[in-house]
Amino acid sequence: MSDITEGILFTDHYQLTMAQLYYRAGLHTRRAQFEYFFRSYPDYGLHQAGYCITAGLEPLLDWMASARFGNAEVEVLAAIRSARGSRVFADDFLAWLRELGGFDGITLRAVPEGRVVHANAPIAVAESPLAIAQILETSLLNHLNYATLIATKASRVVEAAAGGSVIEFGLRRAPGFGGNAATRSSLIGGAVSSSNVGMSHAVGIDSSGTHGHSMVQVFMAIGGGELEAFRAYADVYPDDCLLLVDTIDTLESGMPNAITVFEELRRNGHEPIGIRLDSGDLAHLAVRSAEMLDGAGFEDTRIVLSSGLDELTIWQVKNQIALEAPRYGVDADRLIGRLVHGVGSKLVTSEGDSSLGGVYKTVAVAGADGEWIPALKISDTPEKVQNPGAKRVWRLYDDRGYATADVLALADEELDPTQPMVLHHPSLPGITRTLPAGGVSEMESLLVTVLDDGRRLLEAGGVEQARKRRTADLERLDPGVRRLVNPHRYHVSLTTALSDLKRSLVAGYLD
Amino acid sequence: MSDITEGILFTDHYQLTMAQLYYRAGLHTRRAQFEYFFRSYPDYGLHQAGYCITAGLEPLLDWMASARFGNAEVEVLAAIRSARGSRVFADDFLAWLRELGGFDGITLRAVPEGRVVHANAPIAVAESPLAIAQILETSLLNHLNYATLIATKASRVVEAAAGGSVIEFGLRRAPGFGGNAATRSSLIGGAVSSSNVGMSHAVGIDSSGTHGHSMVQVFMAIGGGELEAFRAYADVYPDDCLLLVDTIDTLESGMPNAITVFEELRRNGHEPIGIRLDSGDLAHLAVRSAEMLDGAGFEDTRIVLSSGLDELTIWQVKNQIALEAPRYGVDADRLIGRLVHGVGSKLVTSEGDSSLGGVYKTVAVAGADGEWIPALKISDTPEKVQNPGAKRVWRLYDDRGYATADVLALADEELDPTQPMVLHHPSLPGITRTLPAGGVSEMESLLVTVLDDGRRLLEAGGVEQARKRRTADLERLDPGVRRLVNPHRYHVSLTTALSDLKRSLVAGYLD
Repeated sequence: MSDITEGILFTDHYQLTMAQLYYRAGLHTRRAQFEYFFRSYPDYGLHQAGYCITAGLEPLLDWMASARFGNAEVEVLAAIRSARGSRVFADDFLAWLRELGGFDGITLRAVPEGRVVHANAPIAVAESPLAIAQILETSLLNHLNYATLIATKASRVVEAAAGGSVIEFGLRRAPGFGGNAATRSSLIGGAVSSSNVGMSHAVGIDSSGTHGHSMVQVFMAIGGGELEAFRAYADVYPDDCLLLVDTIDTLESGMPNAITVFEELRRNGHEPIGIRLDSGDLAHLAVRSAEMLDGAGFEDTRIVLSSGLDELTIWQVKNQIALEAPRYGVDADRLIGRLVHGVGSKLVTSEGDSSLGGVYKTVAVAGADGEWIPALKISDTPEKVQNPGAKRVWRLYDDRGYATADVLALADEELDPTQPMVLHHPSLPGITRTLPAGGVSEMESLLVTVLDDGRRLLEAGGVEQARKRRTADLERLDPGVRRLVNPHRYHVSLTTALSDLKRSLVAGYLD
Repeated sequence: MSDITEGILFTDHYQLTMAQLYYRAGLHTRRAQFEYFFRSYPDYGLHQAGYCITAGLEPLLDWMASARFGNAEVEVLAAIRSARGSRVFADDFLAWLRELGGFDGITLRAVPEGRVVHANAPIAVAESPLAIAQILETSLLNHLNYATLIATKASRVVEAAAGGSVIEFGLRRAPGFGGNAATRSSLIGGAVSSSNVGMSHAVGIDSSGTHGHSMVQVFMAIGGGELEAFRAYADVYPDDCLLLVDTIDTLESGMPNAITVFEELRRNGHEPIGIRLDSGDLAHLAVRSAEMLDGAGFEDTRIVLSSGLDELTIWQVKNQIALEAPRYGVDADRLIGRLVHGVGSKLVTSEGDSSLGGVYKTVAVAGADGEWIPALKISDTPEKVQNPGAKRVWRLYDDRGYATADVLALADEELDPTQPMVLHHPSLPGITRTLPAGGVSEMESLLVTVLDDGRRLLEAGGVEQARKRRTADLERLDPGVRRLVNPHRYHVSLTTALSDLKRSLVAGYLD
């Protein structure tokens, strides 16, 4: 990474002005806790997420391990001038940063990547000297917000494609080098592979892809045609032959030429992989292509769809295929099973809701004797008043084994599932739900200590482990919460003790 | 940059499978031309762009200069397996890549950064041996699409804020390391500064920022209050004091405390910078805050607005201020002039239309004798049929000095503005517009040679030059095209010669 633009100065100016203020006020080494959470699920307009898939943690930990205030960084800061021309950062503060180095002093508890997570429940909790946790804010938010946004979108696309599979290939329209985080997050969200060569290698999954229109155009320009282009491709990739059939005319030219080449391949002892459709009425063309492939004895070749796909279009394509396939003697379920969805721009930009509004809020500051003092931000809107203090997050499973609520509790509070449990609405006082004694089949603490005073505890399970966590969590998530459109609202609640603390703090501030 | 994930393997798998095919077919060194252009302006739903601001070229050139097929990259490619388990890339092809190195053999003509550009007119043209230009595709698209998207959004936000100014501070919700490209592009699009410390340094503009809610919360948690927090800030930054006033209650607490601290500052010989509003009815609070500041003798302090801003909300805030300010005895124009708009998520993700659909298409391939053979992709939709062949792009200015059309012409064609000029609609045959003789006050060739066979010709004018180009181009753009909502459609046309070539090629393919 570039030390200056992707290192520790990949941050907002005001984190450093605040850190300098804490230094001046003698508060910089005071311990503090900050929580990362998001307040609402992505809302794409016509459809909304009922859950998110967390991602970005391991890249964040890697970044934290390498991000340092070295001489170059300190020189950059020393040169920054305010609007009035004076130096913003003084030498003694910069010397302290230089000595500090980086994020060695942080303890971080977090929900591992790939897990289902919900609005208003902490996903990461940083505890460290105040100035250090403050400086971490921007990069933590940047890493977790975008990766979680894209893993969530990918998970929805993959759910919509169920039966078939999904490949991510959005790099060309991805947001700069953010495209790498998009690839990784898409794989966590359930995409089987990606076109991105470098990032696929970095996470240990083979990249994939075939050819574009340009290859066919080149052969045509020099006096050949689509058939010559397909033959040339099959010659080079006899065991990996997937042909894009819409450069001229899908049903009149592309499909007949592809079938000709597939037959030649088979005569030479090779089986083709499939065809790709990139324009037109994808559902109709998939049915017609399947009909032609079946007729020629290629019942198992894949049909790859691409062009502006997202979860809703994939869902619609599947519906249309179910209606239209029987008219052409094609088995709809079998066709859906051979579909591969190439998803690009709309996945890597989370089109419809292009940012996750995750925030990182001070929840507690150590008092003079080291005890935690809860911190609060009062707001005009009750939903935006924070849940104060050091806490834990519990996931409760019901007697069917489904997750039924995420419960925020005080850090030192014990939950007893053998007794009836009263769960409080996080912002509306008096709204409660009582779980009967014995109604909870399992209780799980979601936050795992991943950094202990800077020492990394989380094993680098990588994308593979994260994918397994997603699959396991989705199996235990109510299908209503997984709906693509108008999903059922999952409960995130407070214990009585936390709810009481919040109310007493709010009352205190308003006095 | 990371060599593997941000180097030459920051690309799509299929670029390399196509390159290997060209290598096998003996076409890899055949010269070819590819054009980069976009087909439609960003459409944000309720509002649409009538122009784009190009960006990303210099970072692309920097990337091209450093991206290499070294031993590590070749090893990555050698390890990639196809779905059937066989190696995808053979040793002889990899040896050729290793020898090739990188993009030394490319000639690139492009529109410099910061310029106004339009749909369907080439923004960059690459000419090189076929395999090299093909391998460039993904990264070129990634660099130019996202940067142009964000520079365009920034330009719109800056136009909406006219009178006041714009600061970019979206890093926390930006798409990973793409946030750096967003910062750079926002500055090209007219933002006066950014909160992003590292990238601001890299482009030579001081980063900016003040403090967040967390600073006030910390002081409150340890037994102080907002006033103590403000005082501490003013002590450390007496000449750079900008206070966030909405942590508790803007009008009841934040503003009175800020004014108290401002008065103390002034008694000590310092002038405050301003206040920031981050929640609530921003327009109303700006008016009330201005009233309070004016009443206390702080008529010149800035009022910074933030929280979900984009071009439409800024426009609405200004309208509301115009209506509401007089009721409180505040001069609306004067208030608008002291506004600074802090714009984040919606800018750096181009909310509403989160990707620019720029494409990179083969337009010509060299024949056996080196002559250019036009290439074409036929499509069901007339607008998507390419404009074939090697070309130039001319911008024509009318007698008022406004740009009146971008005209695509054959590369060797001369345009004569002293004669009437017939301009052809790019996709609808027979639709023409004739410019009278002498109606063109100036003709400008938009594409500049920036790489000549790999040698960089464009001086690194950087962000500063790009900002000047934008300002100059906007002054010569019809105000109707600059409208935020439902802008007038700018003309992009073909010369008669190019239009004839296109029609004859289409006819030939359809025979």
